[in-house]
Amino acid sequence: MNINQERLWSNIQELGQIGEDPKGGITRLSFTESEREAKKLVKQYMENAGLRVWEDAIGNLFGRKEGQNPKAPAVMIGSHIDSVFNGGIFDGPAGVLTGIEVLHTLHEQNKTTIHPVEVVSFTDEEGARFSTGMLGSSALIGQLSDHELTESIDQNGVSIATAMEKFGYNLSEVKDVKRDPSTIKGYLELHIEQGKILEQENLPVGIVSGIVGVTWLKVKLKGEAGHAGTTPMWLRKDPLAAAAIILTKLEELAKLQERTVITVGRISAEPGGVNIIPSEVEFTIDLRDLSMEVLQKVEKQLHEEISIVCNTREIEFVIEDLHRLPSAICSDALKGAIYDSVSELGIKPIELPSGAGHDAMIMSRASEMGMIFVRSKDGISHNPKEWSDKEDLGIGAEVLYKAVLKLANEE
Amino acid sequence: MNINQERLWSNIQELGQIGEDPKGGITRLSFTESEREAKKLVKQYMENAGLRVWEDAIGNLFGRKEGQNPKAPAVMIGSHIDSVFNGGIFDGPAGVLTGIEVLHTLHEQNKTTIHPVEVVSFTDEEGARFSTGMLGSSALIGQLSDHELTESIDQNGVSIATAMEKFGYNLSEVKDVKRDPSTIKGYLELHIEQGKILEQENLPVGIVSGIVGVTWLKVKLKGEAGHAGTTPMWLRKDPLAAAAIILTKLEELAKLQERTVITVGRISAEPGGVNIIPSEVEFTIDLRDLSMEVLQKVEKQLHEEISIVCNTREIEFVIEDLHRLPSAICSDALKGAIYDSVSELGIKPIELPSGAGHDAMIMSRASEMGMIFVRSKDGISHNPKEWSDKEDLGIGAEVLYKAVLKLANEE
Repeated sequence: MNINQERLWSNIQELGQIGEDPKGGITRLSFTESEREAKKLVKQYMENAGLRVWEDAIGNLFGRKEGQNPKAPAVMIGSHIDSVFNGGIFDGPAGVLTGIEVLHTLHEQNKTTIHPVEVVSFTDEEGARFSTGMLGSSALIGQLSDHELTESIDQNGVSIATAMEKFGYNLSEVKDVKRDPSTIKGYLELHIEQGKILEQENLPVGIVSGIVGVTWLKVKLKGEAGHAGTTPMWLRKDPLAAAAIILTKLEELAKLQERTVITVGRISAEPGGVNIIPSEVEFTIDLRDLSMEVLQKVEKQLHEEISIVCNTREIEFVIEDLHRLPSAICSDALKGAIYDSVSELGIKPIELPSGAGHDAMIMSRASEMGMIFVRSKDGISHNPKEWSDKEDLGIGAEVLYKAVLKLANEE
Repeated sequence: MNINQERLWSNIQELGQIGEDPKGGITRLSFTESEREAKKLVKQYMENAGLRVWEDAIGNLFGRKEGQNPKAPAVMIGSHIDSVFNGGIFDGPAGVLTGIEVLHTLHEQNKTTIHPVEVVSFTDEEGARFSTGMLGSSALIGQLSDHELTESIDQNGVSIATAMEKFGYNLSEVKDVKRDPSTIKGYLELHIEQGKILEQENLPVGIVSGIVGVTWLKVKLKGEAGHAGTTPMWLRKDPLAAAAIILTKLEELAKLQERTVITVGRISAEPGGVNIIPSEVEFTIDLRDLSMEVLQKVEKQLHEEISIVCNTREIEFVIEDLHRLPSAICSDALKGAIYDSVSELGIKPIELPSGAGHDAMIMSRASEMGMIFVRSKDGISHNPKEWSDKEDLGIGAEVLYKAVLKLANEE
């Protein structure tokens, strides 16, 4: 083992005490005192690792170790240190602190790679405060709009712009945050899995194949209200009975694919009387897959299923788009470096998709991207119970170390 | 045709103007000025029909035509003239006014039956004002409690007791409303169907087989919340996916029986996020059948289905009782008299259950009971669009006339 597992664990625990919430877990929102305190600590870790440290105009915190060729594009390692309300101590910090640990190890080993290596702690990935997110990484690739800064507000009506000014940031400089993509060789992010696949497979780490594309739909069904007692079954146009069949079909459609997930998280029936056949039913669909081709195919299939069920039962239906995000695929080169690093440690290398979004999704628009997942206990995250073991994080950091060396030493 | 269809229609239209609601339809609640005005008009119709008229201490309005044997038990015809909020003009008045029309016809024809014949307009069948109902008929059979009078309140917090006192009723006399069951030979009620069966069968009237029993259940399913993106389909314990299968099974169970209806009118999923697999789902079940045996059998089957689905999917479940009402079966004698009357008019006699409750359900606890249904346009009721044709009501009244003569002339 090259990396120092104990130091990494100690840093995670220390950072995890900043922003502790009396209601449980940590609440470390962007542009607050607890975030400022956390960044101060991270800056110190970076300096201890011998890095040159700077902060940009959106609050992204960088640490850089120069390469033998300082003009070569840098290998960038990143994640975030902001949290959701009452979140855990691993989601975000695991990525930033393993990145620093890798550079600290290289520093101690007096190893200088050909390419420079940077670690970045991005501002506001979670979006918990301003109901947005991916602020820092979006700014870095030049896709953060002024509109988002002025229009996104927190619970007290404070905009991102106002919160930033209060903390001494200069809004006019935000546009300069944009980084020339040619200065980045590739972007690596280690993150806790937030799912149970690695736990089920009994593996400490996994190789992320990509971040799934997401399609959110709202389905509205309109039937005919009626008295529960006086309307025989054969005279009904019950939209909830139709919805029930559609929901069973959605599950079947997802299971026909290898990795597609379909979730109905919200459903309502109107007017909602115990003895009234509903007139209208609404439910949402969250559909995800890594392959945009599969995503489009399944969406087409579910349209067909809804159409068949509704036409058979004389139910009117409307399918509305709520939200669409394309998938982000990890590059073969970065995935390969991670794959080899996992194998060298004698660990079975498995690929799995990320079902949630990360800064890596944004970075993939400007750079090659690769991700390492570390096993999550019970798959829980965004919760004080979020947990990853010290040993698993150590193995994750070692994989990252090996992958960084491979990539940063490529001619 | 013996009865006067035009007079009946005119009375229905005239009474239907009392309590007109600016928001549509009529709102004629118990112990209000509009109800008092309506009763005054009905009393006049009774007097025009040559009846002896009186009101009892709960506000039930009676008209009686003596028989050749005044001591013989009376054939009683009844229904109500109160309405729901924004209701129609037929639900209730159709029964009271056809009853009066039958007696008016006998009066004009100078026919005196062996048994006395009475028509009664019961107080507060709908329960719209005090969230209760069947007040007058319950009092008549001695099953109205003081507790109900003092504890049931309207939207302004006014109890039935207070509303009655304000209208000059003497609460201490309510207990005397109870009628000796031996004074009633049988109870007949004509009502609009509030369903579509007669319309589908293209028949003006039908013979009610009985009033269905009702079982209301609440089903709570508990699974495991999870991130929609990071939880593969095979690791889910999704209570809404389980509920969807259960709902399709409920529909199948109902359709396996001849007349059973099962309705799910209310459903909710918690926590309700688009991207969160629900942790808990609740839905209601309204289960009805005329046969208590079938009702119990189907309830047992649905318990089994819920159990199978939930056990397979590792979902916890609880089934709570919300409400139970046994069915009320129409007596063979009264049903037979109605059946013969329908046949004599050259109309195909079909039997159908009543899916909704009526005063007849209460009266069946103290007397033989029979009901006639008149076709409802589109099955709509409790709505300004509630409608039955003049001709259908005339045929219904003629059936009632014939049935009354048969029953009141039995030795």
